[in-house]
Amino acid sequence: MASPRSILLLLAVVPLATAYFRLPSPWGWKCNRENGRCEKFDDDGVSGHITLNHCKLTCGQYGVIWPQPKLVTLGNEVNYFLPTNVSNKITCQGEVCSLLQEGIGLFKGNLNRYHPECTNGSASFKGPWEKDVKEHQILLDIRVTGGETSLGFDTDESYTLTVTTLEGTTTALITAVSFFGARHGLETLTQLVEYDELRDSLQIVNSASVNDAPAFKYRGILLDTSRNFFSIKSIERTLDAMAANKLNTFHWHITDSHSYPLYLDSLPKMAWWGAYTARQVYTPADVRAIVHYGRVRGIRVLPEFDAPAHVGNGWQWAEKAGLGKLAVCVNREPWQSYCVEPPCGQFNLANPKLYDVLDIMYQEWIDIFSPIDSFHYGGDEVNLNCWNTTDEVTQWMDAEGFGRDADAYYKQWSVFQEKSRQLVTKANGGKEVPGIIWTSHLTEAGHVDKYLDPAKYIIQIWTKGDDPLIGELLQKGYRVIFSNYDAWYLDCGFGAWVGEGNNWCSPYKGWQTVYDNSPTNISRTLTANNNYGNQILGGEAALWSEQADEESLDARLWPRGSALAERLWTNPTTNWEPAEFRLIHQRQRLVNRGIQADRIQPQWCHQNDGLCYL
Amino acid sequence: MASPRSILLLLAVVPLATAYFRLPSPWGWKCNRENGRCEKFDDDGVSGHITLNHCKLTCGQYGVIWPQPKLVTLGNEVNYFLPTNVSNKITCQGEVCSLLQEGIGLFKGNLNRYHPECTNGSASFKGPWEKDVKEHQILLDIRVTGGETSLGFDTDESYTLTVTTLEGTTTALITAVSFFGARHGLETLTQLVEYDELRDSLQIVNSASVNDAPAFKYRGILLDTSRNFFSIKSIERTLDAMAANKLNTFHWHITDSHSYPLYLDSLPKMAWWGAYTARQVYTPADVRAIVHYGRVRGIRVLPEFDAPAHVGNGWQWAEKAGLGKLAVCVNREPWQSYCVEPPCGQFNLANPKLYDVLDIMYQEWIDIFSPIDSFHYGGDEVNLNCWNTTDEVTQWMDAEGFGRDADAYYKQWSVFQEKSRQLVTKANGGKEVPGIIWTSHLTEAGHVDKYLDPAKYIIQIWTKGDDPLIGELLQKGYRVIFSNYDAWYLDCGFGAWVGEGNNWCSPYKGWQTVYDNSPTNISRTLTANNNYGNQILGGEAALWSEQADEESLDARLWPRGSALAERLWTNPTTNWEPAEFRLIHQRQRLVNRGIQADRIQPQWCHQNDGLCYL
Repeated sequence: MASPRSILLLLAVVPLATAYFRLPSPWGWKCNRENGRCEKFDDDGVSGHITLNHCKLTCGQYGVIWPQPKLVTLGNEVNYFLPTNVSNKITCQGEVCSLLQEGIGLFKGNLNRYHPECTNGSASFKGPWEKDVKEHQILLDIRVTGGETSLGFDTDESYTLTVTTLEGTTTALITAVSFFGARHGLETLTQLVEYDELRDSLQIVNSASVNDAPAFKYRGILLDTSRNFFSIKSIERTLDAMAANKLNTFHWHITDSHSYPLYLDSLPKMAWWGAYTARQVYTPADVRAIVHYGRVRGIRVLPEFDAPAHVGNGWQWAEKAGLGKLAVCVNREPWQSYCVEPPCGQFNLANPKLYDVLDIMYQEWIDIFSPIDSFHYGGDEVNLNCWNTTDEVTQWMDAEGFGRDADAYYKQWSVFQEKSRQLVTKANGGKEVPGIIWTSHLTEAGHVDKYLDPAKYIIQIWTKGDDPLIGELLQKGYRVIFSNYDAWYLDCGFGAWVGEGNNWCSPYKGWQTVYDNSPTNISRTLTANNNYGNQILGGEAALWSEQADEESLDARLWPRGSALAERLWTNPTTNWEPAEFRLIHQRQRLVNRGIQADRIQPQWCHQNDGLCYL
Repeated sequence: MASPRSILLLLAVVPLATAYFRLPSPWGWKCNRENGRCEKFDDDGVSGHITLNHCKLTCGQYGVIWPQPKLVTLGNEVNYFLPTNVSNKITCQGEVCSLLQEGIGLFKGNLNRYHPECTNGSASFKGPWEKDVKEHQILLDIRVTGGETSLGFDTDESYTLTVTTLEGTTTALITAVSFFGARHGLETLTQLVEYDELRDSLQIVNSASVNDAPAFKYRGILLDTSRNFFSIKSIERTLDAMAANKLNTFHWHITDSHSYPLYLDSLPKMAWWGAYTARQVYTPADVRAIVHYGRVRGIRVLPEFDAPAHVGNGWQWAEKAGLGKLAVCVNREPWQSYCVEPPCGQFNLANPKLYDVLDIMYQEWIDIFSPIDSFHYGGDEVNLNCWNTTDEVTQWMDAEGFGRDADAYYKQWSVFQEKSRQLVTKANGGKEVPGIIWTSHLTEAGHVDKYLDPAKYIIQIWTKGDDPLIGELLQKGYRVIFSNYDAWYLDCGFGAWVGEGNNWCSPYKGWQTVYDNSPTNISRTLTANNNYGNQILGGEAALWSEQADEESLDARLWPRGSALAERLWTNPTTNWEPAEFRLIHQRQRLVNRGIQADRIQPQWCHQNDGLCYL
């Protein structure tokens, strides 16, 4: 054995970190097939250890696929290849073929993003490579039978994926009824690939078979672009990340009382008065581009125009233009008396010109977001004191003989809601689409069916997961979307923004809480019944943006949005624990794709499956 | 008055959002000189309203300067200028002049960053400009009397800044004893500047007088690069943001039991075994570059080599090299029995070769971080059960007749500490520097002076702000640095990373909590005395990185680090409330500089001073 001193001297002659690190790592991994964990060992070079990425791809029942598919079989081996050697054949009809071509382009871009030195989607694979690596071919064979080009509640998102390797070619066969299923198949295929540091190449699992379909139809993320503005780039990043997690609904809470950032050709003064600054607007072209950006990623863009509360800034133009006040209580003080947070504002139901303007506004909204398969009317947190302390409103209520108690105001609110619904239907060429509305006074226990027709409205639940109202809504036949704030509000847990201490819905909802929030279990508990499955459309995580903008957006949404995605795609019967190793890897994948997802554990935990336990 | 219908039609003819937004905004601001708030109004074009930025620069006693200087007088008017028209003369000696030249370069770069379309420091001012804007000159006149080029505890960081405008020239005179004072003066001057949207130019307050010096000598941010790795770029970003807040100490917790990312030419196997991957290392050249990067920004880089606990991965090479185990309990299970979090590891005090290796290691550490004015030894969370269940250690304790009770182990720990101190002194050419050490078993009530000499050690307090130990430390003559976790641990409040629920030091510490944490008040309360001011060196916010890496780094540190900075620079007698408007603006300034600081309020609050209250 060499003496310590001579070894220290020996080590000291290696001159450069960069050169030094071309030596093989002293560590290797091995899959423990009993518990599906990659275990780390000193690598003596003879015990058959593999790299961490090879192990992650092939260890455990689901490898590192996220969200977990229904049925998976994975091989243990990998083939090495270069992303330039990917070709495809597609079987499809009409416009589906061009969507598929775009989807394949995104798939190839995502392969490049596995390279640790990839910047903005272009990677610098440098080699040198062995012949078998350099020549290995990947063939995509994608077959779509249906012609749907726009996602609806009835779209079939299922797919099958079969990977086989014969001689120098790995073939991936994806079959689906719709483009939307096929693109999910491509995402899964991406997750059978990783970078190989030793060869400066990619690696793909040599054989696999996946049979997959989502548990819920509606799998959403809400972004509020009114409290703070989010650039188009940051919205695109959000859609990229959603696609990587097979989430399918981008619920755009585009306006609120704080700002109205949507520039409309038909009502340009709305944004002129209502946007925070002239630079912070979405143009009609921006919106159309986002709708398309979402579609090729399997995502419907659902617009929300929240009313009759949560309106305010922007509407000031109307009075100047001689239309009278379309909104009242705008920025009124003290805010605590007239709304739930500053600034206040609520529609002026006494002013009939409101409907003339809404008619114009809905026309353009529906046009730029088209085709729509549903419309979100908001409808939360109306403050009766605002209306009841506004002379114009109270005089109208008195003059019309409506009365002035709470029921009288709820009744007029529901009249406003029905008029809005008719204007949306008109704007949509007469075609009715389901309305979505938040739980609110209108949906309160006992009287929801007085105001909202279960055939026409879907209720989005934002109260707590133990709210008995959920049971009532299901029993009365409403379709529901879950966003109970005690698990799926991603803005919770930070400092207060009015006053001090922590914000209202603290604490922070960790990914484990997000993952374990099961609409199925909540519904069973509250109805003592299993029969409402078809009424649960799905769920959504909400990012209200009082305390987030594009700078911290990614860290707020991800990887917690991934936890949501597996709950909604897979609806697993297990809790977060067995999902942990895969989630950490999925988070890393998002980072590779340019999403600044938050870190949830030391990197040591990623390299030592199962050792960061309590 | 035009009819509603014709107005709607009129609005509809404006074709493009981009063209439309060249119209003047319908909003304007006015400074309320009684309460120092910028108030928003409909701008009728005749009431003398100004832009938001002009108002922010000149309203309130401190405008938007952060941290608040000791004495400030600000003019109400602004001059418009282009960043290309900035020239300077400097009065200085030797190396100070080249530091000043670098500082002026940074100042100019930061001016460009006010442009909303600035990318990577280069802005695209496009005009067209009026003659007076185009020709307005800014002259920097900087005078430094002293020759110090490296920040120490005795460095004078004070400065004066006088801004005067005569005809077409605004002169900024900065005087300081040290370069470090002068560069603070440049930061303050930057904060008298903002972008002007109407003229596509900058604007500067036309006259100002500032007399300023810090309340505390030590104003730090701790970054842990062991639990997760942080790229050089992200560390540089952190130093940029610290500079913008006049923070002066980057406490680099570079290694821990999780990983050892520091590549040493003299001990390359440490990082080979200890870095997470070959790409995740800091080379000696990287470290030297960071030390210089900090210096020109007024920041000392303080290295921490945490021992004898919090060591582990990386040290495995020694046994393979025939030196025996230098660390014990490395990755030992179940971790709960041997350390505070996975993975475990502690130095093997029974192995004398440990000191041979530490000798080599300290030589290179001190060399690459030089010049040092202090050294952080860590010294927290030793687990006696690790040592007491390790045969090699217990046999040595027995053989040497030390005994095996807690006091016996503490004694040997203190012997290790003294040997380490001597090795650091040796590595530093025989020059003693103060050691910094965390509160721990060694500093516990009643026996701290048995182990640590108050002339040689500074204690960093991480227990709670009501810990009576703080009083004892002060009364026994220790100099202290505050990092009490109930206010200044920035990793708190997220999901747990072992188990479920929220992490150990939840809730999240909002900026108000950070701001209101006053070492002065804590010390007064715990000692019933005002006489320990000189022993309070300052404070530091810590980002332990189990749940953060470079993706979310900025949002974790900022703007909460700015709140810390004002507490330590200004030590205001007021609480967070009067600081709120300035902090929101400072956060926006950090974003302009490329720091992804978290958003703490809706943008509406920035445009409506004082209306987001409770």
